[in-house]
Amino acid sequence: MFSIKQLAKQAKQASLEIASLSAEQKQKTLNDMANALRENQNLIIERNKIDLCNAKENQLSDAMIDRLRLTPERIEDIAQAIEQIAAQDEPVGKIKHAYQLANGLNVQKMSIPLGVIAMIYESRPNVTADAAALCFKAGNAIILKGGKEALQSNIAIGEALHYALNKNGISKGAIGIVSDPDRKHMAELLQLNQLVDLIIPRGGESLIRYVSENSRIPVIQHYKGVCHLYIDKDADINKAIDILLNGKVQRPGVCNALETLLIHQDIVEKHIKEIAEALEKNHVSIHACEKTLSYFNKAKLATDADYDAEYLALEITIKQVDCFEEAVEHILKYSSDHTEVIVTENKNTADQFVKQINSSVVMVNASSRFSDGGQLGLGAEIGISTSKLHAYGPMGVESLTTEKFVVLGEGQVRE
Amino acid sequence: MFSIKQLAKQAKQASLEIASLSAEQKQKTLNDMANALRENQNLIIERNKIDLCNAKENQLSDAMIDRLRLTPERIEDIAQAIEQIAAQDEPVGKIKHAYQLANGLNVQKMSIPLGVIAMIYESRPNVTADAAALCFKAGNAIILKGGKEALQSNIAIGEALHYALNKNGISKGAIGIVSDPDRKHMAELLQLNQLVDLIIPRGGESLIRYVSENSRIPVIQHYKGVCHLYIDKDADINKAIDILLNGKVQRPGVCNALETLLIHQDIVEKHIKEIAEALEKNHVSIHACEKTLSYFNKAKLATDADYDAEYLALEITIKQVDCFEEAVEHILKYSSDHTEVIVTENKNTADQFVKQINSSVVMVNASSRFSDGGQLGLGAEIGISTSKLHAYGPMGVESLTTEKFVVLGEGQVRE
Repeated sequence: MFSIKQLAKQAKQASLEIASLSAEQKQKTLNDMANALRENQNLIIERNKIDLCNAKENQLSDAMIDRLRLTPERIEDIAQAIEQIAAQDEPVGKIKHAYQLANGLNVQKMSIPLGVIAMIYESRPNVTADAAALCFKAGNAIILKGGKEALQSNIAIGEALHYALNKNGISKGAIGIVSDPDRKHMAELLQLNQLVDLIIPRGGESLIRYVSENSRIPVIQHYKGVCHLYIDKDADINKAIDILLNGKVQRPGVCNALETLLIHQDIVEKHIKEIAEALEKNHVSIHACEKTLSYFNKAKLATDADYDAEYLALEITIKQVDCFEEAVEHILKYSSDHTEVIVTENKNTADQFVKQINSSVVMVNASSRFSDGGQLGLGAEIGISTSKLHAYGPMGVESLTTEKFVVLGEGQVRE
Repeated sequence: MFSIKQLAKQAKQASLEIASLSAEQKQKTLNDMANALRENQNLIIERNKIDLCNAKENQLSDAMIDRLRLTPERIEDIAQAIEQIAAQDEPVGKIKHAYQLANGLNVQKMSIPLGVIAMIYESRPNVTADAAALCFKAGNAIILKGGKEALQSNIAIGEALHYALNKNGISKGAIGIVSDPDRKHMAELLQLNQLVDLIIPRGGESLIRYVSENSRIPVIQHYKGVCHLYIDKDADINKAIDILLNGKVQRPGVCNALETLLIHQDIVEKHIKEIAEALEKNHVSIHACEKTLSYFNKAKLATDADYDAEYLALEITIKQVDCFEEAVEHILKYSSDHTEVIVTENKNTADQFVKQINSSVVMVNASSRFSDGGQLGLGAEIGISTSKLHAYGPMGVESLTTEKFVVLGEGQVRE
């Protein structure tokens, strides 16, 4: 019978073992994981078919079924992602600062693994491999609790990863797969604060809220992305329209897509028609404030709920602001602490924006769609934190470590 | 009527205001706080007398009454501590890393305040001023919930700090004093996750456990310090005895004092008598393992509970280990993740110890008593974290900040 506590105990035990693996051992094991996925491709696809059949029986949406589906190409993509993680710089044992005190003590801060990380996520089976590889690279054991709709796929991927662990003499507790979909195991997992160091939920707002409200373990929260674009009076309007369309249209269903556009009153008369045309040509529905409503052919009046909305669709809220300060005030009130963008050629205004907005990613003259671990050069990403503790913004491998103090002396004692 | 929610709302509002104060404004305000404490010294001492009277009526211990007492000298010490915090490097707005991506985007990580911090603590009124000054330096608003036995002293100190805020045009919400000792306010405070970013409890284990178990806000935990000293077979015995006595005897009631001594079997015969004499001369009670019990005049047999104990007194557990590995295994099993020390002249053994022990402070040939923010050069300390998330080990001003991403472009959009 499946026991989540047993799985967590094995993870804790394995975390001690993998914390001191060498960079080379981890690299080789990760490359073996990638190959094990390739070699077991047919088996994984067979097991994935069970999930796909169940999904159809349970009338899941086509979009969900597509996210669930594994193909030889998708498995190859997953394998390559693991190889990229393998090739990253070693994140453990790095000396972050080092200094000498007057009494001769040498003090260093050294990166170490967090210990045991639990990942709770929904349908995409690729998360199983990505998260396992990232946590392993950082020397952490992981407990993977995926959605029940992807259970057979996750178990099959897990078996391939275990094969690679075993080949390298590492206990399989390092990657624990929750193989029983009963929700009681999740409830129990959230209470295991003696065994689990961090929980990362990835999925809809209700999942993240449930985990945050019920966990006795620290949780990295990523609620939603209500990303703002502010077009300043000193904006280059061509850059502004490019950034607007890229942020809203290129992939509207993701958290770094734009949801609200703020425009300085001085440029409304001159440029809003261009903006309206660009949005309408791309079939974006518009919720406009009273002052700008009349410029659009088919806009609705924006409500307070619109300013708070994460549409995740071809839909945007537009508001005219009297001045820079009003734009900042609006963002501070409605921000989800994800990503905010200013377009301006005025360096002072840009500096003020960077200074006054403390969202996790603040951008000047760049698309919000760059707010992503891969795009910002972190390598693979385990999530985006919109809470300020421990990590803030896109989280790469380094966010899965912490730092200890190392103090080297020659017999010093305290006066 | 006092409302904790109102206080938290004012703190949230003030946090936006103080996040963008300049280094000079914060420095001047802090120096004004120090002077306001000096100028209001008589008033503060008068109000402290009320707490002292109540403490005597309520038959608090002499030690507690002493910790509660304010004198002109102690107020001067508090004022000087604030001036030292004022003089520290500015922690906000620092560029931590900066790099350019292939597409020309400039990415920076910049330090920013956390927002609103709640500090929950027990009797010492100096914590009121220290914690307020540290949080203010890092651009955070603070909510101070001190023990009811120090209520009048805390309110009087708070008034002096508010005088300095007001003099500098800063809202007093930046330093919120919980002026009603009713416990229901603490319970309510722990639920205000929309307004408070971090809770730091300082005090006994039961307080910290209560806060951790009942809070919906992230908590920095510091449970206890079961600090180990391992004397290796290649130790310099004079250094070892100095470090042992300093760690156990100099100030036994603090969390960085030693609680357990592990000795390699190869040096027991030759050196344990010296160690026994040194401890007995300093009136340290001994709980010894079976193998070493006979070497001591008046030791008890160590139980499993002793290996887990934080004595905070002139009392120590002693265990002989067969080898280095057994010492590491014992520490991993019983560690509180605070501080562990090895004494050895063998560099390889020291390296292995540093590598395998992931407590928040790991020391080679130095006294555990250095495990303290002030001693490790962080300036003042707000606490010592024994949980790995966000901060681990002694926490200075920098631990009260987080980092945002700043992305500077020239109109780049994502392909």
